[in-house]
Amino acid sequence: MSGREIEFFFDIGSSYSYLAATQIAGVAARTSTPVRWRPFLLGAVFKATGNDLPIKVPAKARWMLTDMQAWSAHYKIPFQMPTRFPLITLRTQRFLAGIERTHTERVAAVALALFTAFWAEDQDVTSDPVLAAVARAAGLDPELAIATIDAQETKDWLRATTDEAVRRGAFGAPSMFVGDAMFWGNDRLPLLERHLVAR
Amino acid sequence: MSGREIEFFFDIGSSYSYLAATQIAGVAARTSTPVRWRPFLLGAVFKATGNDLPIKVPAKARWMLTDMQAWSAHYKIPFQMPTRFPLITLRTQRFLAGIERTHTERVAAVALALFTAFWAEDQDVTSDPVLAAVARAAGLDPELAIATIDAQETKDWLRATTDEAVRRGAFGAPSMFVGDAMFWGNDRLPLLERHLVAR
Repeated sequence: MSGREIEFFFDIGSSYSYLAATQIAGVAARTSTPVRWRPFLLGAVFKATGNDLPIKVPAKARWMLTDMQAWSAHYKIPFQMPTRFPLITLRTQRFLAGIERTHTERVAAVALALFTAFWAEDQDVTSDPVLAAVARAAGLDPELAIATIDAQETKDWLRATTDEAVRRGAFGAPSMFVGDAMFWGNDRLPLLERHLVAR
Repeated sequence: MSGREIEFFFDIGSSYSYLAATQIAGVAARTSTPVRWRPFLLGAVFKATGNDLPIKVPAKARWMLTDMQAWSAHYKIPFQMPTRFPLITLRTQRFLAGIERTHTERVAAVALALFTAFWAEDQDVTSDPVLAAVARAAGLDPELAIATIDAQETKDWLRATTDEAVRRGAFGAPSMFVGDAMFWGNDRLPLLERHLVAR
């Protein structure tokens, strides 16, 4: 079992990524499997696969709001529909990619802070003040973290992660991989856990 | 709580309807809530809501096959990808609507037999011999059941059920209602059960 891990591909702008992000540590603990947090760009995944925002279907968009309320009550986590949804997350995901590139061990904490800022506190998670505050809270130098966003290496990193996810079969978020096995969506966490226990 | 029920809107051609159909009796038993099986026409729901077959995204279609294998293993039910998928289920759903109209209490048994025939045995569930055999096994007169398919009352019944589901917010299958609360998909059975327990 050595070397086995959960690769958690996520985008801050994805509601079901938020839900899964709050639960993935529990799956990891119960199955003794480490999680590798991998920020990618969901918009680029949609473009590459021909997939589209589910909210393009009005009836689905209406239902998803009640669904988010039901899940957040079930998980006992805060939820407030963001006024900026759907959000263009390029800057946010690059910020996360920069942290993954330079301080991998902080990605989980930073991502969880950004998820909460967006999905529970209606903050603008593309803005420098919010990103800087999150970096500071995670023990990172905020100015360096902001500066890293526009580094070519960061842009390349995010693009490479996104391309890799698409190549491996991803078409939405969150996408969780254990080797070749892909689990799509917060609602597949039980199957992911079952897969990890069964192996 | 008197009068409370689970309304289970389903289409035989929907893989996740099959999964949910095998589990809904368990939810009903554990929550002491009756199930009303309501065949509708998923293709017409898609047309009315602007939704589309998920398999139109090739990466999603590939993943859905592995997802169906994972769920069927989890539920310990047989699964074999039908060669006729996606199926135009108009005749099958009219057959079910006719039974709902004339022998409501047999719809569950007939539907489960058709789900198994399609999703586990690769049978043509639009063909008269298969429909007749299923009717016979459910204790119905096969010739009458077949004759009912093309009755105007049956066509009107299926259309009315489908229109009602759309009016109440459905955009896919299975769609489960408890009053105004809608739960979409096999993967929402735990939330449905939680909702029934919490009330």
